[in-house]
Amino acid sequence: MKQDSKISNAVIKRMPRYRRYLKELQKKDIDKISSEAFSNLIGYTASQIRQDFNNFGGFGQQGYGYNVTALHDGISSILGLDREYTMVIVGGGNLGQAIANYTHYYKSGFIVTGIFEINPRLIGIKINDIEVLDYECLSEYVRERKTDIGIICTTADNAQEVADKLSRAGIKGIWNFAPVDLVVPEHVALENVHLSDNLHSLAYYINKRENDEKA
Amino acid sequence: MKQDSKISNAVIKRMPRYRRYLKELQKKDIDKISSEAFSNLIGYTASQIRQDFNNFGGFGQQGYGYNVTALHDGISSILGLDREYTMVIVGGGNLGQAIANYTHYYKSGFIVTGIFEINPRLIGIKINDIEVLDYECLSEYVRERKTDIGIICTTADNAQEVADKLSRAGIKGIWNFAPVDLVVPEHVALENVHLSDNLHSLAYYINKRENDEKA
Repeated sequence: MKQDSKISNAVIKRMPRYRRYLKELQKKDIDKISSEAFSNLIGYTASQIRQDFNNFGGFGQQGYGYNVTALHDGISSILGLDREYTMVIVGGGNLGQAIANYTHYYKSGFIVTGIFEINPRLIGIKINDIEVLDYECLSEYVRERKTDIGIICTTADNAQEVADKLSRAGIKGIWNFAPVDLVVPEHVALENVHLSDNLHSLAYYINKRENDEKA
Repeated sequence: MKQDSKISNAVIKRMPRYRRYLKELQKKDIDKISSEAFSNLIGYTASQIRQDFNNFGGFGQQGYGYNVTALHDGISSILGLDREYTMVIVGGGNLGQAIANYTHYYKSGFIVTGIFEINPRLIGIKINDIEVLDYECLSEYVRERKTDIGIICTTADNAQEVADKLSRAGIKGIWNFAPVDLVVPEHVALENVHLSDNLHSLAYYINKRENDEKA
């Protein structure tokens, strides 16, 4: 598949969403869809959709529409979802446990192989059959097993230190849940989930609507 | 405070991040900061920062910089964080429990008053002192207590039904963790946390870097 290396981050961010909708169409046994029908479903304009897919060499046929399965599989391949990723979770508290359960439940190609903790009361137990290991052993573990992704579920204060340790040990990507913006080397991919930012945006819209109603 | 009602969503999305950085500055006893220094810290251009704050009538003084506490409090007020919000969680599984713990831990102005479940084995137990209640009672509960926010931690298949129920009962905002895009009435604010989309973007960047290295 042709893959332009200058694809914008905005396009990449839309790809998982396209894929999610295509999966729903597959579930409903729909095997082709026009960019217009897809636009009605997903809320992007038809022209935006065509432009996005053209970045990857297109998937459609004039007058026929897109083949749902080909498009789904093509996007999966672009996203690198046709392989497995190994992951470690740092921080075995509630959030770390929830993420472990979440990835376990979805049985995707993302496999948590270990959870790392500093709390001695947690070290040695199992969460969803995943062993909780001593944080002291993180670097060695990641280096030896060539772990792909480190998931940071620590407090904000500890997150940068964890990111440094993971980066030095050769991690390829970091999924950060700590409420802080991390600095990582250029070769390490980084995605943040800032739950509090999200909640604060929600507060803004609720508050604004209430004020608008009063006015 | 002057508040332009045509502020773009992009500006609003940046506000919680500004506030987070200002809080860090406060912790370090820094009481003023120039837009240039703030730019170095947060990664937006100084001109972007000035433009964003001008939307709200500005907070700075020429040649002096921004007063960190005034700016922090101003943004808090704009975001509506100077009041409390009541929340219910729908879905008492691992993710629902993690969110309950998370909001409990951060002791912000967001208070979970109930967790709703269909699983009879969970109904009646307590999670962080929050009662797990019968999903059948959700509408009545939200209507009587004028709950602000509903947090959806169900499966994708059930999420839209829950959103409909919450909306009809007068909820003001929905924080959706189910991997599906919901349709809600215009007066209901909606924020999505699509964890799998996030993970898939991360996979893309990891995979791309590996391919680039091979090439």
